Amino acid sequence: MGNPTAAMLVIGDEILSGRTRDTNTNHLAKELANRGIRLCEARVVADDQDAIVAAVNALRGAYDTVFTSGGIGPTHDDITADAVAAAFGVPIDVREDARAILEAHYQRTGFELNEMRLRMARIPEGATLIDNPVSAAPGFTLGNVHVMAGVPAIFEAMVASVLPTLTGGDPLLSQMIDIDRGEGEIAGKLKALAEKFPDLSFGSYPYQRNGAYGTQLVVRGTDGGQLDRAMVELAALAQ
Amino acid sequence: MGNPTAAMLVIGDEILSGRTRDTNTNHLAKELANRGIRLCEARVVADDQDAIVAAVNALRGAYDTVFTSGGIGPTHDDITADAVAAAFGVPIDVREDARAILEAHYQRTGFELNEMRLRMARIPEGATLIDNPVSAAPGFTLGNVHVMAGVPAIFEAMVASVLPTLTGGDPLLSQMIDIDRGEGEIAGKLKALAEKFPDLSFGSYPYQRNGAYGTQLVVRGTDGGQLDRAMVELAALAQ
Repeated sequence: MGNPTAAMLVIGDEILSGRTRDTNTNHLAKELANRGIRLCEARVVADDQDAIVAAVNALRGAYDTVFTSGGIGPTHDDITADAVAAAFGVPIDVREDARAILEAHYQRTGFELNEMRLRMARIPEGATLIDNPVSAAPGFTLGNVHVMAGVPAIFEAMVASVLPTLTGGDPLLSQMIDIDRGEGEIAGKLKALAEKFPDLSFGSYPYQRNGAYGTQLVVRGTDGGQLDRAMVELAALAQ
Repeated sequence: MGNPTAAMLVIGDEILSGRTRDTNTNHLAKELANRGIRLCEARVVADDQDAIVAAVNALRGAYDTVFTSGGIGPTHDDITADAVAAAFGVPIDVREDARAILEAHYQRTGFELNEMRLRMARIPEGATLIDNPVSAAPGFTLGNVHVMAGVPAIFEAMVASVLPTLTGGDPLLSQMIDIDRGEGEIAGKLKALAEKFPDLSFGSYPYQRNGAYGTQLVVRGTDGGQLDRAMVELAALAQ
């Protein structure tokens, strides 16, 4: 299918140490599917400049759009903005419009815009800002890379403001049905269906419920009519 | 730190479509930290041979150990074993010891070992089997790559049987403290601490609780004495 493609890059030691579960990828995946953008790959890397640069460059070359989450706060390990600038080979410095946003926020909240907080106004040359309605510190878009916060509420708000700017495709529809048979029982017929409907993708996910085995069958695609016809045949597998 | 390194490769359209949240990476991250193995990177790719081959080869070259989850079931989209064989350039076919495991399981449970289920006995040449105490179909280890099921209960059982075979390192310890200040307030002092303790890694994670901002400070490392000294200084940041 000719849908636009995307990748997600999660940045943060806290994911790789197991302290934090990444929930941003799942949120992004659902939002992209609704807009007909295919999430093709996700990566998690540490707070390490070389690792971030390598991943940004691999992903922005391979996919239409890249989203990053994490590493844009005020502390010493928040190095995403500098790493993205390095990946693109452009300079980075405190930018006046970003500084003004932070100044207004800290004046309003009664805190000081100290040197470390000012790091959040470092924006690579040529980037456009992404609004942060929660805690002011902006994300940014540079080329096809959207750099966003790791805190889920902020990440989600930033996704909501970026998505309308992207070229979508036909929404990726899915339908599902649970059947009371193990996936090994219906795997042959499912393969035949996948060959009959080459534009659809068929997935099967085994489950155990009240001690009995069953399978959730999921079919995905952009053509609602084809999806409906496939569902009729999937339902017959339950017989 | 000289700890052994590892990467995780999650395989499955259902993660990238948003249908399923990956929980295996978080489980693995915690288990590896306990054994002193550093999880350096995680990737999610689709049920696509080229994508799996490219990721397996990139990760097995870059890290000491690679774990994969997903794509070893009986259906047409379960292509992980074939893709891993292709990545290593070795033949793959039904192997008699794996077939015997499946035959015994299906005889016991009263189901038929049909052609699609027999796909789960396809094992790349030179691999050793990983026991599956839940549903019999084995994983396998080929070189430094451990190929495991995506179903969390099975993945976790397989991790438990593989981990004792790996060379670990000093356990990666962590301590944490919550302080009632925004991370921008203490970022300067935290940076100074990170410079004072170059063998430790310091993370800070903002939270909002009952309307007030706070920060969880986490310090990680392998030297318990250093960790204790760092915690004393971290606690002073709360003053």
